[in-house]
Amino acid sequence: MSKHAGAVSQLVEQLGRLPGIGRKSAERLAFHILRVPEPEAIALADAIKRVRNDVRYCAICFNLSENESCAICNDPNRDATRLCIVEQPRDLMSLEQSGVFKGHYHVLLGRIAPLDGIGPDQLTVDALVDRVRTSNFAEVIMATNPTVEGDGTSLYISNLLSEFPVEITRLARGITAGSVLEYANREMIADALTGRQKL
Amino acid sequence: MSKHAGAVSQLVEQLGRLPGIGRKSAERLAFHILRVPEPEAIALADAIKRVRNDVRYCAICFNLSENESCAICNDPNRDATRLCIVEQPRDLMSLEQSGVFKGHYHVLLGRIAPLDGIGPDQLTVDALVDRVRTSNFAEVIMATNPTVEGDGTSLYISNLLSEFPVEITRLARGITAGSVLEYANREMIADALTGRQKL
Repeated sequence: MSKHAGAVSQLVEQLGRLPGIGRKSAERLAFHILRVPEPEAIALADAIKRVRNDVRYCAICFNLSENESCAICNDPNRDATRLCIVEQPRDLMSLEQSGVFKGHYHVLLGRIAPLDGIGPDQLTVDALVDRVRTSNFAEVIMATNPTVEGDGTSLYISNLLSEFPVEITRLARGITAGSVLEYANREMIADALTGRQKL
Repeated sequence: MSKHAGAVSQLVEQLGRLPGIGRKSAERLAFHILRVPEPEAIALADAIKRVRNDVRYCAICFNLSENESCAICNDPNRDATRLCIVEQPRDLMSLEQSGVFKGHYHVLLGRIAPLDGIGPDQLTVDALVDRVRTSNFAEVIMATNPTVEGDGTSLYISNLLSEFPVEITRLARGITAGSVLEYANREMIADALTGRQKL
């Protein structure tokens, strides 16, 4: 039970449903929203509504898009011979921010997770196979997450794609730039040793 | 420059303006908002708008309220002889959550901060003095923050109120429940020693 205004309680409750936002943070955010200039608060509310109204999945790569197909799929300057496969749109965004990859993407919208009842049918795997069949990709880069399920998904897809004349690669694994060996875990060290490169 | 849908970018930008929400968190929240059932996303947007439309300051105590005066000021079961003075509505909320205080509040809407150009005139000090003059408070509890500015504000107000027949107290200071002496700082230890209580 709360003694402050019902509208504030409701906002605190709604904010508290966001991931990583606890009760105290939700209160702090609510008071921030009460204090900022009105247009800033309204802009946030409108951005939430707009994203739900206007955003859908790209019909080609399943990235988020406001049109039938997304800005990357429509960009004639991207390398049409390389396809990078990711689990989620946010993974695509991380890769884009690095600025290294100039090819196209395919978003699976998840990973194969038998324990959660998620098989290839719930993902965009069929569309991916069609795409590789009808396009001229020279290389398909598996960029699923380096987890048991992500690795399993990569393996499943690379088997499916083995009938096509494409090179299948995956992201390098090893120690991370700026890290300290002392604090690297066993898997990181093992990956770094297994994949060691000529100097 | 971002390659994903404009609506997503805008939402990430708006979320990133919230305090304590960095770029990565804003992205995670945006993707959460895209993924949850539509009514949940709309409920958050509506709660933001509603809080800005419906919430104002209580005409008596300056707590947040959806009516002319707030639920606490209108509650006949609260102790009308005790008044607790806080800086902000969120401080009032913290005190309410402890459930110990059953009296009334007065929210200053800030603290005296000469370096920021904030004097008593920008706070609700005049309304407070009027209130103490025309009411029958036996005790006024200063619950400003234990900072230089909060303490200064308390001192200023207690001087102002010294002409009225009220007892003026302040929140106890000392070590915190559940803390470890080893990690307490010098001020905490000093407060705890100065304010030591009979066992």
